[in-house]
Amino acid sequence: MTEKAEDKDLLQPVTGETKEAACQVILGTTHASLATISAKNGVPACSRIGLALDSTGMPVFLTSSLSSHSAALEADPRASMLIGEVGNGDPLAHARISISGTVEKVTEASDRDQVRAAYLARHPKAKLYVDFADFGFWRLRPEYAGYVEGFGRAYALTQEDLADMALQMATETAA
Amino acid sequence: MTEKAEDKDLLQPVTGETKEAACQVILGTTHASLATISAKNGVPACSRIGLALDSTGMPVFLTSSLSSHSAALEADPRASMLIGEVGNGDPLAHARISISGTVEKVTEASDRDQVRAAYLARHPKAKLYVDFADFGFWRLRPEYAGYVEGFGRAYALTQEDLADMALQMATETAA
Repeated sequence: MTEKAEDKDLLQPVTGETKEAACQVILGTTHASLATISAKNGVPACSRIGLALDSTGMPVFLTSSLSSHSAALEADPRASMLIGEVGNGDPLAHARISISGTVEKVTEASDRDQVRAAYLARHPKAKLYVDFADFGFWRLRPEYAGYVEGFGRAYALTQEDLADMALQMATETAA
Repeated sequence: MTEKAEDKDLLQPVTGETKEAACQVILGTTHASLATISAKNGVPACSRIGLALDSTGMPVFLTSSLSSHSAALEADPRASMLIGEVGNGDPLAHARISISGTVEKVTEASDRDQVRAAYLARHPKAKLYVDFADFGFWRLRPEYAGYVEGFGRAYALTQEDLADMALQMATETAA
């Protein structure tokens, strides 16, 4: 009974508590799985990224321009990010969120500075490679998400819900 | 320096040790992230699945026909599976494998019996829902994979490499 965000009948109503819980899933981890569409042959591709949140609470990540997920995103900016730690027992009993949206490159200097600082705060070891010439940051602009708390507890989050969550996470991260 | 399986120059040569290490990554976890292409709008989607290996060492998983990833796979069987636990420190320093291929439904009764047994052996709690009418098994037929052991240690695995690994994993699982 997972990821049924497209099936309205089976979804639970989204409350402030739902959004708060979904924020904690995102704040509680340092990585995500990224689904992209391969630039080469149009097939789906899944890769691991290091995850951080910028000063506005948007997901940001770092890739090498030599990587195939960079090539995929250059060709097609649509992406989905699966976020959530897996504990003991049934992996489907643990909360996770799949955020769909469009990525953009972080290019402007002051924007890069704040994203870099946020990323390094969450990934101190990335200072070894963050400034390599082939590395660059991306931001995901969330459009909708499926949030699954466990069996029979699935929610569809709208762009407005995700904007509320970004604000809340930016505040929590800055505090 | 991740997932650069499409960039031959940066790849390390694949040895028996590489394949053995990649097998251990797959055998060492019970879940995967699945990238599919949405049936609704063609966007990539990423979701969590419970992972097991059938008697031939192929990845198998269970979905509800009510889920959006089932709908995606019904419409387009191409998928990518990211497998690998994340430990402490930089999430990109931990080994993972992204297996690309095509899924097929497990329909034939004796096939379903062996897949069900393999899945329940790895996911005993799934006995609560495995026989629900809307649940069914899928098998991924691997075509190629990117295996990343850590920074600067990336490998492209061919269909032949993956067939070798399946045989090895089937033997280890049966032992």
